[in-house]
Amino acid sequence: MLKTQAYAAFNHVAPFAPFEFERRDLTPTDVQIEILYCGICHSDLHQARSEWDGTVYPIVPGHEIVGRVLAVGSEVRKFQVGDTVGVGCMVDSCGQCADCHDQQEQFCPKTTYTYNSPDAHTGGVTYGGYSSQIVVTENFVLRIADHLDLARVAPLLCAGITTYSPLRHWNVQPGQKVGVVGLGGLGHIGVKIAKAMGAEVVLFTTSAHKAADAERLGATVVISKDPAAMRSQRNSFDFILNTVSASHNLDDYLNLLKRDGTLCLVGVPENPHPTPSYPNLIFRRRQLSGSLIGGIAETQEMLDFCAEHNILADIELIGVQQIDQAYDRMLKSDVKYRFVIDLASLKAE
Amino acid sequence: MLKTQAYAAFNHVAPFAPFEFERRDLTPTDVQIEILYCGICHSDLHQARSEWDGTVYPIVPGHEIVGRVLAVGSEVRKFQVGDTVGVGCMVDSCGQCADCHDQQEQFCPKTTYTYNSPDAHTGGVTYGGYSSQIVVTENFVLRIADHLDLARVAPLLCAGITTYSPLRHWNVQPGQKVGVVGLGGLGHIGVKIAKAMGAEVVLFTTSAHKAADAERLGATVVISKDPAAMRSQRNSFDFILNTVSASHNLDDYLNLLKRDGTLCLVGVPENPHPTPSYPNLIFRRRQLSGSLIGGIAETQEMLDFCAEHNILADIELIGVQQIDQAYDRMLKSDVKYRFVIDLASLKAE
Repeated sequence: MLKTQAYAAFNHVAPFAPFEFERRDLTPTDVQIEILYCGICHSDLHQARSEWDGTVYPIVPGHEIVGRVLAVGSEVRKFQVGDTVGVGCMVDSCGQCADCHDQQEQFCPKTTYTYNSPDAHTGGVTYGGYSSQIVVTENFVLRIADHLDLARVAPLLCAGITTYSPLRHWNVQPGQKVGVVGLGGLGHIGVKIAKAMGAEVVLFTTSAHKAADAERLGATVVISKDPAAMRSQRNSFDFILNTVSASHNLDDYLNLLKRDGTLCLVGVPENPHPTPSYPNLIFRRRQLSGSLIGGIAETQEMLDFCAEHNILADIELIGVQQIDQAYDRMLKSDVKYRFVIDLASLKAE
Repeated sequence: MLKTQAYAAFNHVAPFAPFEFERRDLTPTDVQIEILYCGICHSDLHQARSEWDGTVYPIVPGHEIVGRVLAVGSEVRKFQVGDTVGVGCMVDSCGQCADCHDQQEQFCPKTTYTYNSPDAHTGGVTYGGYSSQIVVTENFVLRIADHLDLARVAPLLCAGITTYSPLRHWNVQPGQKVGVVGLGGLGHIGVKIAKAMGAEVVLFTTSAHKAADAERLGATVVISKDPAAMRSQRNSFDFILNTVSASHNLDDYLNLLKRDGTLCLVGVPENPHPTPSYPNLIFRRRQLSGSLIGGIAETQEMLDFCAEHNILADIELIGVQQIDQAYDRMLKSDVKYRFVIDLASLKAE
């Protein structure tokens, strides 16, 4: 067994604290990865603070992992010691169902998530990337070009694929008009990816002070609280990616879609959005949909796309000791745009 | 001007009564049509009784029209006197916009609906098919094979295209599993069309007494009030066509969709359906959408498809004098499955 250092939450109110546990010994298909960087996703906070069902304590969150291969099992063919690799939201799936067959492992009913998920190897739950190392079956390990700024790559493993997958699935094309709602961890990467796909991108935000940033990323900005500005955008969008999970009126965005346009939700709302106007769907054949991360093959495609287009997250690098402050600042949207933990700070303990 | 006999509602509570008005003289591109049969659509009732905004009285409803060409303008090329033809929900559109360009005239913001719609020719409103004749520009006239049972063709002009268009748009294929919610005017034709497209069809109804009928149409029946029966259908549908406009819980049907499945609403709810579960969309990438009749070219395609597959509506033929009783019975769902007015009854007055 592989002794591993981590930071864990021990209950829903306690601050993060050091935690030591053991990773499994390598099976023939496993890859052992030294974790260099791990992004902090809002769902880490939801689960650490038990805001969703089913948190098992202690919990070690983290599913935006970049690291280096320390060792490989005897049958591993795709990776070797020293490779730069990533791990996202999933570490395994059943491999048998229709979703797995279609390379859409994120929808497999037996997906093993990277943390707080039943772990067939240990009988306990999985522990995520707020830790010194991780052991993952090779099919769930992603290849990362090692010339990149690796701390800035980490958030792509969740925020990147969560925005890339729907933009690809709904076939965003050069010349199309794409909206992104919310300039946070997801939104700022969504803008970059949609832009790189050749779309005209409009960023919707309630925060006028984010306008300059969004414009720097290549988006036109519309302040969603301004009814005249919103009205001027009606019936003009092919696709709108809605990254905001706080409850809000979806009609504000459904109204902006062209005929056959899609509003895609990627933020799981804690409190439901109000009922949308059904005539708004019917009278323009609009679609309201949702999307969940992406499959492993698509995650690799996204990483390659981002490397080719020089897309990296805008981040603030912290030590493990700052996780609680980072969570508190995230709740105030006081981060541009993703916190990333430098796991070197664990060794300094 | 062409003196025309009709039945009209003169206010939102009065019974239908005889009404005489004039159709326009034929322009070079117009077709004058003797109306033989006109189906009664639930939206006729909504508008006659002013349940939607904007009813102008007297109102002559009716947009499921089958008739015979009486005369044609000098430039009409597609039709000649004696042809059997149909007119659906629209009699004109702008011809210039993107929707018209894409042959999706039903979405044109300037569509002229067949009744109760501003009429550029007269400066008043359009009058529909509860009348002896109609004058329509040739591009909005449909060709109908004259060997068919024409009274049973009439409902295809609205109920047929309203169900055919989404089944085509979402690309229903042989071997797919398709649900149809509600066995009424729309639903019973939806079942027949989906069946003819090669799908396995399941009909959802609250009325156990409709089971035998639905089975005769080729559908498996699920009683939607039976939780165990509904549970057994989970995650199994490619597409569900929801024809029910009464407010109901959409999650009951969203839950039945496979990954990437679509629930399409074609009934405009008077009172909104409750808020759907957004996680239900996100965690299976399901889509909630709506659809509105279909374009003129697609309506012709539907008529040809129905002729080829011997699809006709199940109807109850009435005289104009029975419109009010028919409306009252429709409100009790006491019709299998569409009332059609035999306009010969107008001449008998």
